[in-house]
Amino acid sequence: MKKPDWMAPEGPKWVRGEARVCYDNPWICVTEHQATAPTGNPALYGVVGFKNLAIGILPIHEDGTVTLVGQDRFVSGQYSWEVPAGGGALGVDPLESAKRELAEETHLAAATWLKAYEIELSNSVTDEIAIGYIATGLSPATGDLDDTEVIRLARRPFKEVLDLAAGGALRDSLTVALLLRAYHMAQTGELPQALTRAMLA
Amino acid sequence: MKKPDWMAPEGPKWVRGEARVCYDNPWICVTEHQATAPTGNPALYGVVGFKNLAIGILPIHEDGTVTLVGQDRFVSGQYSWEVPAGGGALGVDPLESAKRELAEETHLAAATWLKAYEIELSNSVTDEIAIGYIATGLSPATGDLDDTEVIRLARRPFKEVLDLAAGGALRDSLTVALLLRAYHMAQTGELPQALTRAMLA
Repeated sequence: MKKPDWMAPEGPKWVRGEARVCYDNPWICVTEHQATAPTGNPALYGVVGFKNLAIGILPIHEDGTVTLVGQDRFVSGQYSWEVPAGGGALGVDPLESAKRELAEETHLAAATWLKAYEIELSNSVTDEIAIGYIATGLSPATGDLDDTEVIRLARRPFKEVLDLAAGGALRDSLTVALLLRAYHMAQTGELPQALTRAMLA
Repeated sequence: MKKPDWMAPEGPKWVRGEARVCYDNPWICVTEHQATAPTGNPALYGVVGFKNLAIGILPIHEDGTVTLVGQDRFVSGQYSWEVPAGGGALGVDPLESAKRELAEETHLAAATWLKAYEIELSNSVTDEIAIGYIATGLSPATGDLDDTEVIRLARRPFKEVLDLAAGGALRDSLTVALLLRAYHMAQTGELPQALTRAMLA
């Protein structure tokens, strides 16, 4: 979309100096940069580079229910219910990665894909970009999980799941943003009327 | 909020083995763990630990406008318009950090603070938690920027800014999630009626 004039960049920028790689694995690469801040002050800047896009999908069934994925999360040590999601290789069309993830985790294919957002998840430290899709017109598909994944599925009414996100019982950023954006799309006529009625019933 | 029964944890969990610190700076600490996946397969897991909460604030004025902050971002190399935001020390009440950030970046204080979300930004790799607030009842305040920050302010109608987020012209996750949650709160009667009318006009 065209940006309004008031958004035009203005003022001094960060200047990058020498960089060294501090950590690297198949998913991330951490680099430390000598830098000069827009104020002119010297700074050390550690950047976490991501080797994949974060792809999230909200599959909405005709009856207004959505399918979520439950799994134990290593980092938090907590069980987490989230939209189907996974990494998409940087050189691959994100929509293809989304179709693959949806099939692998939920055994669903979708006739219609709507891009819901493209966001920087933590832009003061990481370069990770998340792309969210709304998937509708669902039908059965086949796919296999990664060799580290054990998941469960739940199919629940959109309204119940939106309330869980608003109330803090769902904590994954891709999930919360997709549910809120789907609500916004439903309210503003970006989704089919019959689906909107089923979702908000 | 109370979680429904279907959300109860079930199934095998990740098991943590030995860990070593691979990188550390004042903002993040990267640790690599030997681990066993829920499938029983061995795995190496790199975790980016954050030393601060990510705190974002959407200040909404009585006339339905919001104040945004513009700045050059080191990681993307792009100019970015975002809600006022910053790091909150882990041992400090996040609301106090939010008040400080709002004063520092926008020279505003708020009479009313509503928690909009608490989310895990990238929970397969980082432990970073973001807390978003809606700030209303705004009045002038004083505060000083960090020594690396050069920012600009813009005060624009909520509806215009929400449309920029939905259309992809705003890309910061805290910002997009706060705007969508504020829209949801306005639609569901969680914000004062007069403010809702001004925001959605």
